[in-house]
Amino acid sequence: MNRFAMKKVGLALLVLLLFATLATAETKNDWSGPKAKYVFLFIGDGMGLQQVNAAEIYKSSLEASGKEPSLKRLNLSSLPVQGMITTYSSNSFITDSAPAATSLASGYKTDNGVIGMDPTKTKKFTTVAQMAKAAGMKVGILSTVSLNHATPASFYASQPSRNDYYEIGQQLIDSGFDYFAGGGLHQSRGKQKDRPDLYDVAAEKGYAVLRDRSSILAATGDRPLIAVNPVLDGSNAMPYDMDRGENELSLAEFTAKGVELLDNPKGFFMMVEGGKIDWACHANDAAAAIGDTFAFDEAVKVGLDFAAKHPDETLVVIVGDHETGGMSLGFAGTQYETFFEKVAFQKESYESFDKKIAAFKEGSDRSFEAMMPLVTRSFGLRAVGADERKSLEEKAAAGDDEARKVLAMALSDRELEEIRRAFERTLQGEQERAKDEATFLLYGGYEPLSVKLTQILNQKAGIGWTSYAHTGIPVTLFASGVGAELFNGYYDNTDVAWKTMSVAGLRN
Amino acid sequence: MNRFAMKKVGLALLVLLLFATLATAETKNDWSGPKAKYVFLFIGDGMGLQQVNAAEIYKSSLEASGKEPSLKRLNLSSLPVQGMITTYSSNSFITDSAPAATSLASGYKTDNGVIGMDPTKTKKFTTVAQMAKAAGMKVGILSTVSLNHATPASFYASQPSRNDYYEIGQQLIDSGFDYFAGGGLHQSRGKQKDRPDLYDVAAEKGYAVLRDRSSILAATGDRPLIAVNPVLDGSNAMPYDMDRGENELSLAEFTAKGVELLDNPKGFFMMVEGGKIDWACHANDAAAAIGDTFAFDEAVKVGLDFAAKHPDETLVVIVGDHETGGMSLGFAGTQYETFFEKVAFQKESYESFDKKIAAFKEGSDRSFEAMMPLVTRSFGLRAVGADERKSLEEKAAAGDDEARKVLAMALSDRELEEIRRAFERTLQGEQERAKDEATFLLYGGYEPLSVKLTQILNQKAGIGWTSYAHTGIPVTLFASGVGAELFNGYYDNTDVAWKTMSVAGLRN
Repeated sequence: MNRFAMKKVGLALLVLLLFATLATAETKNDWSGPKAKYVFLFIGDGMGLQQVNAAEIYKSSLEASGKEPSLKRLNLSSLPVQGMITTYSSNSFITDSAPAATSLASGYKTDNGVIGMDPTKTKKFTTVAQMAKAAGMKVGILSTVSLNHATPASFYASQPSRNDYYEIGQQLIDSGFDYFAGGGLHQSRGKQKDRPDLYDVAAEKGYAVLRDRSSILAATGDRPLIAVNPVLDGSNAMPYDMDRGENELSLAEFTAKGVELLDNPKGFFMMVEGGKIDWACHANDAAAAIGDTFAFDEAVKVGLDFAAKHPDETLVVIVGDHETGGMSLGFAGTQYETFFEKVAFQKESYESFDKKIAAFKEGSDRSFEAMMPLVTRSFGLRAVGADERKSLEEKAAAGDDEARKVLAMALSDRELEEIRRAFERTLQGEQERAKDEATFLLYGGYEPLSVKLTQILNQKAGIGWTSYAHTGIPVTLFASGVGAELFNGYYDNTDVAWKTMSVAGLRN
Repeated sequence: MNRFAMKKVGLALLVLLLFATLATAETKNDWSGPKAKYVFLFIGDGMGLQQVNAAEIYKSSLEASGKEPSLKRLNLSSLPVQGMITTYSSNSFITDSAPAATSLASGYKTDNGVIGMDPTKTKKFTTVAQMAKAAGMKVGILSTVSLNHATPASFYASQPSRNDYYEIGQQLIDSGFDYFAGGGLHQSRGKQKDRPDLYDVAAEKGYAVLRDRSSILAATGDRPLIAVNPVLDGSNAMPYDMDRGENELSLAEFTAKGVELLDNPKGFFMMVEGGKIDWACHANDAAAAIGDTFAFDEAVKVGLDFAAKHPDETLVVIVGDHETGGMSLGFAGTQYETFFEKVAFQKESYESFDKKIAAFKEGSDRSFEAMMPLVTRSFGLRAVGADERKSLEEKAAAGDDEARKVLAMALSDRELEEIRRAFERTLQGEQERAKDEATFLLYGGYEPLSVKLTQILNQKAGIGWTSYAHTGIPVTLFASGVGAELFNGYYDNTDVAWKTMSVAGLRN
């Protein structure tokens, strides 16, 4: 063979190789088996491997029966398929929830802050939820945060900024989707409160808007439904599950209602977001994060129970959109031990305790000594003097369980000092706080006392944090049902959308 | 049916269910396909998902060509199969390397500190390496730390304590394995230096003991070989890869030599440990951890290249034994951004810089001002006065790249103050340091100045740490080749051993 012929053969081989590569890239997201008629996509916002495992170890610590640790799995982490996904956006290794959910919904990357559009903010993406609707399936979008927040928004909206809540809300109403549930509509009258109320607009366009427990549970699905939890926080999100009152609905109840309303011969697509796992981790509050992870896991169980009845027609995917907080199951001070049972001493979220602080600041006695009983009641942490400590140690040595518990939650001199400093910062008020770098690193713009209390409680349990923001670490994915095996491996968040579309028969 | 009959049917069903459950538990680790003749088990000590991803982001940051981040995979993270494993030991959710490696080698859990025995320290476990040897395969055990350190030890030894280095070394010699390589034998003359030197004992029992580069590379395998890197640190480990001198061997070179010596018609089992990824993370030194992860990945490439030549006969598994340091790819101060390229300013490991500090303390000028030029040279960090900062900012604004680089590494007032405090602690000497809780949290028993410098450099890059010890978070596993698909999913570290034994045909 002469050199020219060899070159031609080489070129032909190269082209073949290129095609083979493209074909491989194509097939990794292509499902050729039976299609899923019912698709559940559960998104744990800020739920990395860390958050899942923290809930597992907490559960295991509380339910421990013997000496040997044995890990209690959650419903979601018991599934047969486990994958891992990268989460970076098109302009940062650390994504925010807008491009993260856009990738999961549409299969394309975009910049931080952008919803359902490309980085130039000109091209709109089509989402798996919109494709499902177009194919005649029913669609439900559920979230514990507001329904026009970044993650749910990325399934029905295209907006240059996640902060355009009003415009996102308008697109929610125009989506024609069948069921929205969980939090409310944020800035429903616009940033300046001068626009027609979105709840009214929704009702005019044919949505039933229900805001109390009994009517939501009684809804029959004669009209598309926006079901809003009776209690909302300042951001129109549901309260943390650990703070949930009895007239509220759990995410699992909203999910069960969704299954009831959406089940139909053409199938459904349901996205269910545990949105405040993320918010709790921003605030470095492990108890609230674990509580909302359990609530999310209960919602997953509703999906799995439905799948058990329709095993050959249902795909269930559970995935995080990114990790939040740099949560770690190990802290310098506790070294090779964990004491996750201490997390159970926390009786309310930081958000709920913030309200107690606000009330305290209105009171007449604003001394540290007056605050500490509140701290002990809500977090179990207590200041113990030298004499008291000695007496407690003697009782504990003699087998007094109560004394042992008190000792476990006794504050060291360093811890007490850190709490006292945070308390003083809290008294100074918002303006004073975030001035300098050192203060930001200590409290991250949160109520200093609250964030310090959860951090110290977490450290005693053996949980550390490195950030008040998201991190760049890949997150895990769990799946079961039709086409689940396609989700094995280490791939990008955009692939989750392509795989889901393929298994649901929404692509080619 | 009467009640008695119903009870009998119920019991029968229960027994059936039990068998079904056992059968499932059994089959998940059973491989029925063709057996692997060649098995590579690569263990990244302390290499969780975090450590893998840090190396990926670092590589991506340095090789970035455009605006959009694109993640450069390592050799090890490009494999088709990805799994996730729990790592807890039989007495803690946070394992140390002894029970972790015992689980990977033998399939059984044990207590922290124990090598290849049950928690009562009476029953000895049989390892996959010993089974391979018994089946006529050749066996190689490689590590960057000492060859009688916990991880390699767990493949050939059974000892109540990982600190029984001498007894472990004796078991190494008695193993009859064909190739040991990397670090040396720690405490080769015993704790009191009063025992026969293990190197001599090994030579008497038929091992070739080689300690220089050229003779190691020339070894022909006529005798079993102990190949020790020419340079060792105080723990008889190889230096960090970023400190490697030209007369030393890389882990990849040791691995390539192993392939050459062990390849034979009956096949081989090779365990290759990147042991100092862990040590670097204990010290919160990301540059050293990433450097050793790359070196480990190069060794993996040697295995993959061999596998490419024997695709139907080779299994390659890469796994961490636990995560170390609570490493996180996000730091409070850098929020949603990462600057991993700053890690490249670090020119040597903390271990190497510790030696510079020791020399500095012997010098005549022990002032902070005399230390700072050393800091700038080794870590790029520099103190910049107000006037100098202003001038640099002007130059940077005008497009001066050098000025921009200097500014990126300029220390804030807080950072400079923290370094100054650490410097003062360093001057006080070992005894003074670890006295109180607060000091331990700050420096973890390391040379205060070194650990503070790597922490601050890491924080500037966007890397946080929560511990100087291990953490409890599950770690990822990658696999390719014969039987690799058995390693998909979320399971326990003990399963890795059973799966490996099954694929290699060493069980049943």
